Amino acid sequence: MTDTAARSYAEALDEADPLAPFRSRFEIPDDSVVYLDGNSLGRMPSETAPRVAAVLHEQWADRLIRSWDEGWMDLPLEVGDRLGTTLLGAGPGETVVCDNVTVNVFKVLEAALDLRPDRSTVVAHKGEFPTDRYVAAEVTRRRGGSVRWLGPLDPAAPLPIDPVTAMQVAGALHDDVAVVLLSAVDYRSGAIAELAGITQAAHDAGALVVWDCSHAIGSVPLDLPGIGADFAIGCSYKYVNGGPGAPAWIWAAPEHHGAMRNPVPGWMGHSDVFAMSPDYSPAVGVRRFMTGTPSATALAAVDVGVGLLAEAGMAAVRTKSLALTTYAVDLYDRWLAGTGETGLAVTLASPRDAALRGAHITLGHPDALAVTQALADRGVIPDFRHPDGIRVGLAPLTTRFTDVHDGLLAIRTLLEALR
Amino acid sequence: MTDTAARSYAEALDEADPLAPFRSRFEIPDDSVVYLDGNSLGRMPSETAPRVAAVLHEQWADRLIRSWDEGWMDLPLEVGDRLGTTLLGAGPGETVVCDNVTVNVFKVLEAALDLRPDRSTVVAHKGEFPTDRYVAAEVTRRRGGSVRWLGPLDPAAPLPIDPVTAMQVAGALHDDVAVVLLSAVDYRSGAIAELAGITQAAHDAGALVVWDCSHAIGSVPLDLPGIGADFAIGCSYKYVNGGPGAPAWIWAAPEHHGAMRNPVPGWMGHSDVFAMSPDYSPAVGVRRFMTGTPSATALAAVDVGVGLLAEAGMAAVRTKSLALTTYAVDLYDRWLAGTGETGLAVTLASPRDAALRGAHITLGHPDALAVTQALADRGVIPDFRHPDGIRVGLAPLTTRFTDVHDGLLAIRTLLEALR
Repeated sequence: MTDTAARSYAEALDEADPLAPFRSRFEIPDDSVVYLDGNSLGRMPSETAPRVAAVLHEQWADRLIRSWDEGWMDLPLEVGDRLGTTLLGAGPGETVVCDNVTVNVFKVLEAALDLRPDRSTVVAHKGEFPTDRYVAAEVTRRRGGSVRWLGPLDPAAPLPIDPVTAMQVAGALHDDVAVVLLSAVDYRSGAIAELAGITQAAHDAGALVVWDCSHAIGSVPLDLPGIGADFAIGCSYKYVNGGPGAPAWIWAAPEHHGAMRNPVPGWMGHSDVFAMSPDYSPAVGVRRFMTGTPSATALAAVDVGVGLLAEAGMAAVRTKSLALTTYAVDLYDRWLAGTGETGLAVTLASPRDAALRGAHITLGHPDALAVTQALADRGVIPDFRHPDGIRVGLAPLTTRFTDVHDGLLAIRTLLEALR
Repeated sequence: MTDTAARSYAEALDEADPLAPFRSRFEIPDDSVVYLDGNSLGRMPSETAPRVAAVLHEQWADRLIRSWDEGWMDLPLEVGDRLGTTLLGAGPGETVVCDNVTVNVFKVLEAALDLRPDRSTVVAHKGEFPTDRYVAAEVTRRRGGSVRWLGPLDPAAPLPIDPVTAMQVAGALHDDVAVVLLSAVDYRSGAIAELAGITQAAHDAGALVVWDCSHAIGSVPLDLPGIGADFAIGCSYKYVNGGPGAPAWIWAAPEHHGAMRNPVPGWMGHSDVFAMSPDYSPAVGVRRFMTGTPSATALAAVDVGVGLLAEAGMAAVRTKSLALTTYAVDLYDRWLAGTGETGLAVTLASPRDAALRGAHITLGHPDALAVTQALADRGVIPDFRHPDGIRVGLAPLTTRFTDVHDGLLAIRTLLEALR
């Protein structure tokens, strides 16, 4: 019988992994580092530095201002289209790459609230990623509205592990709810929300839905038009491998393109950018969500990351992702759970049902911070998440099954030594 | 007697120019291009590509997420300090590099309005750079306030050439004016507004002042604390040479640091970023104007540009800038003005008094668009500005006096051929 805890088993899984060759498409200076944080910052594709250098030398230094006419102006929409059609199930003209997630949450939330002028409540989750919560609270405060929070309101309460459900959201809806703002994949538990059901429930109550897909994009295949979503935003520096501080994106359902307003109406979102016209006239479609001048190098780097995912195919990415998290949970059960062979009493703060998980899992332990720091000294890099989470991100294009094995073994070894 | 129109005169000026060696610090693949648009997109410093590559390879690819702890978190403030102390006359802790100008105008304008809660009018100029006008109009509209426009309200009227004066602003002030939003250097005429006088007039009327320094920074020495400014914003891709879409910056007077609010409260502006705390608690000082995750490569590129200006010294930069625009106006008078030797009837849409000019001048001609395009075919690159402006930007670190000569001679030759 196969010993699934043996390193040879992980090696065999890597051997059989059809996506394994993609790892060689990334720059990995130290192959011994067990990187389990691609969900915070994805690795750098090998093509990125040459692409960025080409933009610097051939476009900026050589063509100078002429590059705006020679391609830069349309890059946010072109890269947006590639990102949207590859990763979001979007049609062309529905996605723009611009600004960061915080700014995009702000713009889209304001735009969605404007589309429901008789309502002033936003439904959001108390366990949501901070920036979304802060923006939702401030935007509603300024409008004299409020946020109806889902989830445990006591900050000391344990975080929910199960996905947000349509039933849970439906219970919070009322006739003043204008917008539901939720993450497609929870940044701590990794749970995938009930995307279609929640969207439908919100629509049934007359509300719009904004999905933050930061922790989903590039690891969980999305079909935003298929679930009937209104708006979505997300980053590109996690599984899209766009680099530190890579620009974020906005997707808007075509039915909103005519009426939606950008509350930060910048010249780059104008219908005629260089007319410098007296009044603001929004560009057709999602381009109107642009604000100021986009970074040509940053867009090139996002494009490289999107290209790799397109080449791999999101179905294959998801298949590997499920195998990675399933293997991680198996090893957790065996080595880290209170009921496992070591009895280490680590908790699993992610769903047991693989279908409900994104590409990361979180392990709970009271000494999570110290453990995470000690692991880093040993070349094993997960992520600490306040207050007691060790977040283990498994990026399908770059994480090996042996990384899962070695990483979880390192946690086990460390916790045994601490015991 | 010296013939100031002879190319040898320009060559002699280049020979005697103490900043001439700085041109070799930039990557200039085609030395024959006469680039007169450094006021739109500054040239690329030679150090930029290696610095960006180092961030990519040594920080992103190799150190991965650890780079946030190893320096990235403080970069927006560190680069902000270098930029602010070198170019704005700022003290440490007063400047942050983040987002783009549009987003920063929005945040700062909202913050300034919040500091004057009993007032709802913004004074701005009808000839202001579009993004500032669009944001001012939308921000006040959403608050039920309005913009009191300076300048000719008829879009067909000729644009003012003279600087905005304290007297002009004072005439528009009343007790509902919360904020005056103006450019330090006009993006078309290049005129320098009466910075200290306007600020004083606004303060006398109980209003705050936001200076957009996009067309000033890196060419006109600024002393924002000295003029008593409240807030300032600007870009870094013109005379700062930060690259296409380089991040912008915000400066805030220390007296506002305690009370100012960011209307887009992102996690990166929180007092404890990784606490992921239930409520937003702004960071001390100007860091609170940060929104989402900053780009490490973009900040490195801005830092390179700031470093070059620091090395040159802003006094020397201004001295050369005055010499460049003065020489350009001399050649304009000789070759392009209706009263000159060619009688070409080009107008000068910039102040005649050198002290009132930033680092660009604008020439008016009915065929400005066609002329600008034809010049580009001849390797001479100024900038067209709607409806009839040929904008000639003279970047002190990279523009040669021979560029001024050759550029204006090319305009003369072209217009003579068209006549």
